[in-house]
Amino acid sequence: MNAATPAWGLRAAQRAERLARAARALDGQRQGRHVATGAAVQLLEAVLEPGDRVCLEGNNQKQADFLARALTQVNPQRVHGLHMVQSVLALPEHLDLFETGIARRLDFSFSGPQGARLAKLVAGGGIEIGAIHTYLELFARYFVDLTPKVALVTAQAADAQGNLYTGPNTEDTPAIVEATAFSGGLVIAQVNEVLDTLPRIDIPADWVDFVIPAPRPNLVEPLFTRDPAQISEIQVLMAMMAIKGIYAEYGVQRLNHGIGFDTAAIELLLPTYAESLGLKGRICRHWALNPHPALIPAIEAGWVESIHSFGSELGMEDYIRARADVFFTGADGSLRSNRAFCQAAGHYACDLFIGSTLQIDLQGNSSTATLGRITGFGGAPNMGADARGRRHASPAWLKAGGEARAGRLGAAGTPRGQKLVVQMVETFREHMQPAFVERLDAWTLQEQAGMALPPIMIYGEDVSHILTEEGIANLLLCRSDEEREQAIRGVAGYTAVGLARDARMVENLRDRGVIRRPADLGIDPRDATRNLLAARSMRDLVRASDGRYAPPRRFRNW
Amino acid sequence: MNAATPAWGLRAAQRAERLARAARALDGQRQGRHVATGAAVQLLEAVLEPGDRVCLEGNNQKQADFLARALTQVNPQRVHGLHMVQSVLALPEHLDLFETGIARRLDFSFSGPQGARLAKLVAGGGIEIGAIHTYLELFARYFVDLTPKVALVTAQAADAQGNLYTGPNTEDTPAIVEATAFSGGLVIAQVNEVLDTLPRIDIPADWVDFVIPAPRPNLVEPLFTRDPAQISEIQVLMAMMAIKGIYAEYGVQRLNHGIGFDTAAIELLLPTYAESLGLKGRICRHWALNPHPALIPAIEAGWVESIHSFGSELGMEDYIRARADVFFTGADGSLRSNRAFCQAAGHYACDLFIGSTLQIDLQGNSSTATLGRITGFGGAPNMGADARGRRHASPAWLKAGGEARAGRLGAAGTPRGQKLVVQMVETFREHMQPAFVERLDAWTLQEQAGMALPPIMIYGEDVSHILTEEGIANLLLCRSDEEREQAIRGVAGYTAVGLARDARMVENLRDRGVIRRPADLGIDPRDATRNLLAARSMRDLVRASDGRYAPPRRFRNW
Repeated sequence: MNAATPAWGLRAAQRAERLARAARALDGQRQGRHVATGAAVQLLEAVLEPGDRVCLEGNNQKQADFLARALTQVNPQRVHGLHMVQSVLALPEHLDLFETGIARRLDFSFSGPQGARLAKLVAGGGIEIGAIHTYLELFARYFVDLTPKVALVTAQAADAQGNLYTGPNTEDTPAIVEATAFSGGLVIAQVNEVLDTLPRIDIPADWVDFVIPAPRPNLVEPLFTRDPAQISEIQVLMAMMAIKGIYAEYGVQRLNHGIGFDTAAIELLLPTYAESLGLKGRICRHWALNPHPALIPAIEAGWVESIHSFGSELGMEDYIRARADVFFTGADGSLRSNRAFCQAAGHYACDLFIGSTLQIDLQGNSSTATLGRITGFGGAPNMGADARGRRHASPAWLKAGGEARAGRLGAAGTPRGQKLVVQMVETFREHMQPAFVERLDAWTLQEQAGMALPPIMIYGEDVSHILTEEGIANLLLCRSDEEREQAIRGVAGYTAVGLARDARMVENLRDRGVIRRPADLGIDPRDATRNLLAARSMRDLVRASDGRYAPPRRFRNW
Repeated sequence: MNAATPAWGLRAAQRAERLARAARALDGQRQGRHVATGAAVQLLEAVLEPGDRVCLEGNNQKQADFLARALTQVNPQRVHGLHMVQSVLALPEHLDLFETGIARRLDFSFSGPQGARLAKLVAGGGIEIGAIHTYLELFARYFVDLTPKVALVTAQAADAQGNLYTGPNTEDTPAIVEATAFSGGLVIAQVNEVLDTLPRIDIPADWVDFVIPAPRPNLVEPLFTRDPAQISEIQVLMAMMAIKGIYAEYGVQRLNHGIGFDTAAIELLLPTYAESLGLKGRICRHWALNPHPALIPAIEAGWVESIHSFGSELGMEDYIRARADVFFTGADGSLRSNRAFCQAAGHYACDLFIGSTLQIDLQGNSSTATLGRITGFGGAPNMGADARGRRHASPAWLKAGGEARAGRLGAAGTPRGQKLVVQMVETFREHMQPAFVERLDAWTLQEQAGMALPPIMIYGEDVSHILTEEGIANLLLCRSDEEREQAIRGVAGYTAVGLARDARMVENLRDRGVIRRPADLGIDPRDATRNLLAARSMRDLVRASDGRYAPPRRFRNW
């Protein structure tokens, strides 16, 4: 044995040491895997070591908020310089950790509400960002080079042995726990309740080291709920174009919808407008999607065969239970979501991703990154990228690939399918900010934050269509950078980008079907009224669900 | 309620009916979830219905062979026209099902040893192929439009309740069971043994409907074992070029190796040749890889920090247990593999994939598909594709992306990283078949089998380097179809493709570093001897493992 030879058994020894420290610290406050609520901080101080890589379950929806708070309360003299790996920075506590020095380095996917504060902390040198990931990419690194030493997760309930029931918001928990438990790490779960018998087991007890009852149920955000009352007639028009000009055109059977009113409008037009076009059974049969309330009318009308979900949505519990024919549910009748598998489904098993953005440039690159905020993109890059490993064909995928490759030579001409990736935006967003820009803010952000690349959400090379109230630009059919630029200008309306179009070239693109206006699709904008929506209010959604959907209070006004 | 409105609760009702039929059929041959070995055929006849979608666990390594056999024995009058979905067609029984009409349709990933018989059955109209997938893509579809109604899986052991212990070959089981159990399907597991207490729980009992002890342990193939005695000096030379010309050049830290002697040679040169170049700690630290015996010397020399595995490898059990610092293991010390997560890791968390192929064309498209065989490509398309959803940077990924995009304009010029995808082939393979061809057999195969696209394993657009004994062609640096073609011809040796090179253009590409010969890399082919291999025989591997590696009998000659 020489100096270069590794010392084996370190991982097991370190794990044993941490467990022994926990046993000493918890003396009298522990029974089997169960730890008293009041001992959370002691437990964390006992098991954590400076510099540890810690996965804190900050998900897109549910939050291990009690453990997050406990972590902010450890003694920074003892626990500091942690490397946090987590899907979403959603709570103030997630950033407090960095201000006190308890944590130092961060790898994540999304920071929505904390984006501005995160940017300030990074600028002030208080956080070292490893990288921003798409969800599945971050999970993948948990098994490669970002394996957590300690995972702090949340579940709905535990039994006496420590088996966990996640309830409908299973989300990221299985991926986090598997990576940690099978690499000698420690798994600590906060639970909303302790039950004699769990409705079902989502995580086996022997993958879990400690269970702590939280003083109140974990936070869950109803992120995917959109009130139909706020859908505008412009959004109805755009939804009609999406259905007739893209879904019907390609025969899209399997898809994912991004979050927002634009796609909620599409969901609400399926049983009305799309039904009138005879599209039932021909489009939108299989979904990788959270249980969007806006999809209730389509489900009730028999449009939907299956929905696999990343997470759940508050208020949809009873409805999901009654529609287990469509949703993935356990023997107990409640949803089993799974972000890792649903992202894999979004990447490899869907023919279309449609979502919104804040800015699109002349190359078709789009980004929600804006100055002064570091937010990340969650699942969009995974679903809004051509899945080049895909090998199974479908009519939609073949048609898109055929359009992209027709007439090309060499490697680019080898026949191949392609995913439909649609960016759906009004030409102006709130406060008359143009959605089309010569230069993305992402470039400035890259300079400011010293990133290796500009934070682009979806690359122009991967976008197939841009849809605005002015029409659809089919980028698959463009054969040069100039054509692509004019196709984008041609649907950019009265923005500066749109006004600078070459009118003759745009008309030529329209003749070739690269740009299609509502009239080209046989759509009369005067027909685009809110009357087409299958539900025009939250109350309508509740009614469509036969009273099974119970919207969170903030969405009720009756 | 009108005719178009769906009847709800069908899924639950159908499940209850199937379970009731099973209860009647198994009267007296069942205790809780446990079913007597002799009742397997009765159980299958009771729960299956004509046309059912059935996932039979045919994995890359382990096989639910007892259940496969039982399925061939059901009465085809009662059970017929099944739609089989499975990763790998490995056993004769997998095809027997189609000959008897028990099964009719097939969606799969790989059919290695059964490829020729499969092609015949397809030609004769006995099988309807849905599609050929990469593994993760197939798993993804289990959650979207290929959800199994019944899953037939295998595990090492079950306890009285029906919890499952998969042992080190966890492989596909968690993905299959999750998709089936949470969609109202039925999960039937054959087990090698029934134990009072499981070493650990891999699948909770309430995801499982029936457990059947198999009369003998399930088949597991040691697919990834390569005897170092069979590594040639040409392979040593190519491995030297890979290490110096690619791994060191890009600083590749996280990677996947394909199966074969070419990559085994690289693994065996790490502690010798790569060590002499001072590369320890600079390359090859994190792996998405099965427990290749050829990696033992590198692990022992401290080269490897982590390995996450798709499956396990026979004979490596004790070694893995002793090296739990590196492998993903459970509290019981044995491996927890997971093909779904490891494929995600290979796609999103690795900077490099290197593998072999049978044919490469002038566009750089490569395929292992040959006439008269329908085999599929397993994981290669997933790992050998640029992961366009990836957003975290690494030096290797940035350098590859920079090379590919330097000087380009428009969407193609937007800065972006790129995965290194290396095809490593000798210019002639067995029986003097040229690896380089003007036209892939895949095109003829497409015509013969009526496929929508030619079965290309890795597209030229995704390949970054082609490595032969003649040198390395860096396709990232090519700027036209013609350059790409000459770069490929330039490393194609004495094949017809190589001989038809434009010598001046090839020399020009060499001057620009697009082609690099051994001499350009400072490698003297005379140094490429088998003495460089850290192990030159299976015995050496056993010795390097300190007796912990126990090769299967077929690999022992002492």
